[in-house]
Amino acid sequence: MSWIQSINFLEIIDFVGTFAFAISGIRLASAKRFDWFGAYVVGAATAIGGGTLRDLMLNQPVFWMENGTYLLCTGLALLWVIIFRKNLVHMHNTFFVFDAIGLALFTVVGIQKTIDCGMPIWVGIIMGTMTGAAGGVIRDVLINEEPLIFRKEIYAMACVVGGIAFAVCHWLGFATFPTHLICGAVVFLTRTLAVKYQICLPTLRPEDDDENGKISKES
Amino acid sequence: MSWIQSINFLEIIDFVGTFAFAISGIRLASAKRFDWFGAYVVGAATAIGGGTLRDLMLNQPVFWMENGTYLLCTGLALLWVIIFRKNLVHMHNTFFVFDAIGLALFTVVGIQKTIDCGMPIWVGIIMGTMTGAAGGVIRDVLINEEPLIFRKEIYAMACVVGGIAFAVCHWLGFATFPTHLICGAVVFLTRTLAVKYQICLPTLRPEDDDENGKISKES
Amino acid sequence: MSWIQSINFLEIIDFVGTFAFAISGIRLASAKRFDWFGAYVVGAATAIGGGTLRDLMLNQPVFWMENGTYLLCTGLALLWVIIFRKNLVHMHNTFFVFDAIGLALFTVVGIQKTIDCGMPIWVGIIMGTMTGAAGGVIRDVLINEEPLIFRKEIYAMACVVGGIAFAVCHWLGFATFPTHLICGAVVFLTRTLAVKYQICLPTLRPEDDDENGKISKES
Repeated sequence: MSWIQSINFLEIIDFVGTFAFAISGIRLASAKRFDWFGAYVVGAATAIGGGTLRDLMLNQPVFWMENGTYLLCTGLALLWVIIFRKNLVHMHNTFFVFDAIGLALFTVVGIQKTIDCGMPIWVGIIMGTMTGAAGGVIRDVLINEEPLIFRKEIYAMACVVGGIAFAVCHWLGFATFPTHLICGAVVFLTRTLAVKYQICLPTLRPEDDDENGKISKES
Repeated sequence: MSWIQSINFLEIIDFVGTFAFAISGIRLASAKRFDWFGAYVVGAATAIGGGTLRDLMLNQPVFWMENGTYLLCTGLALLWVIIFRKNLVHMHNTFFVFDAIGLALFTVVGIQKTIDCGMPIWVGIIMGTMTGAAGGVIRDVLINEEPLIFRKEIYAMACVVGGIAFAVCHWLGFATFPTHLICGAVVFLTRTLAVKYQICLPTLRPEDDDENGKISKES
Repeated sequence: MSWIQSINFLEIIDFVGTFAFAISGIRLASAKRFDWFGAYVVGAATAIGGGTLRDLMLNQPVFWMENGTYLLCTGLALLWVIIFRKNLVHMHNTFFVFDAIGLALFTVVGIQKTIDCGMPIWVGIIMGTMTGAAGGVIRDVLINEEPLIFRKEIYAMACVVGGIAFAVCHWLGFATFPTHLICGAVVFLTRTLAVKYQICLPTLRPEDDDENGKISKES
């Protein structure tokens, strides 16, 4: 990923996304009254957990061990929450945009890294989705809650849709840069439009729940 | 495992087991009202989680990345639950048999793959058990429940018993095919007999629970 | 780590630490009325989970596959809990000391193994902390509780403090043996003093919780 290291703009987006992901973990940890260490671990797991899982499955060196920025960034996020605790609720929209930007970048990075390992594109879509969304699942497992992204509005599906856009560009023979741009834009737009218009995936109803919402004991 | 790829019968069993495992995850996810994406992820984690953990620990390529069948099969299981939701309860016995067949096959595959990596047979027994039973643990962690197989009737222990049968055949110098057949049959029979006669492992009592069930506050 | 294999004293400490970690997992599993298999798995995850995660991330062979002692030791811990269930509460102080010794040794082993892989020392501190403390997090995830070490007195932070001591010795050019001794002693002392004087890390307050503990609905 030498193109990332050479373009400062992408480093900034990477930092912003990591920061937003870590903030989301630390805020949920604070709602559970975890101490600073616990909050840091949950923040780090949210920010780098997805990429770590990806690197383990691809048998690649774990990315955050080669660059201390990610863990420093998580430390800054912890400081931020400690200092601006009372005002975080007013930064809600900013964090939402940062989070969506991070989701888009992490998806692109995950897909490209997977393809660079010689994997087919469908594995890339899965790994891109994992890079973007698995950190949030690990976060919810650590704070002992049902994973939010399995129940709430479109989040991981935005990565899947962006991944399909990546695959289409790939098949059409687009160059790397426009492919990345289109994939990231699709993830970002899918995510923000889904939240704006409250678009959700259908929910699976329990088996003893009939059509009109009445619970019948049949099991 | 070229013998698996060449024998269609085994591919069918593999598919049936994956399908039954995925169904079990998707049904539990639906009881928690997860959306389709969440149900798919829980189903996939149940079906391929154990084998993924095994491949990571053995430092082997993750099996489902090399063959798209497993994720397709999970998708079919999701469709099945969406379409036949009301009737699933009547397919209970069929799913139980499919699940036990899957447990047997996954154990055999896990042990053989571990031995092929040059590991001793006792590691093989652990990896075979992990291939068969760890997916169910990951499933229960994702839906935020205490793992069922740590409390209910014999499940993972059937893999251990089958693994010991594998080791005995191995030491006696049996060929690969009868060894696999005996191991699988022992897993299947142990599992089905345990459920039929409600055989459970002993439970550890809490430390403040005395012999006759009376709770004494000593701690 | 040939120095470990050649010095019996360290093997004894390793065994004692593994035993104490496994006991802690098995006791919590028994409070949840898990069966013997479930208790064994939770005990093993507590004792070897941290080191397993470390070895996966460092892309090293998983340590307990190369030496059956760790799983045997977990089996002995299960037997111990089954036999001495009623008296475990009286062994509280002994187990606490064993656990702190294990924490110290696991931290040292984790840091040294990471450095031997050519990683920088800050990765070593993280991996040492993971070796010592991640097993307890996996344990709490498996029994479906919020991780204790994210809320309670200094535990994982003792590994971090010991790791910083290791780094200082390393930078000062100390030999391996005194570096290990100082690191282990710092972990052990930090842990025991923190418990004796009930030293905790600050807790993050929820965002809707104002200074004097009154809950105001602002979110």
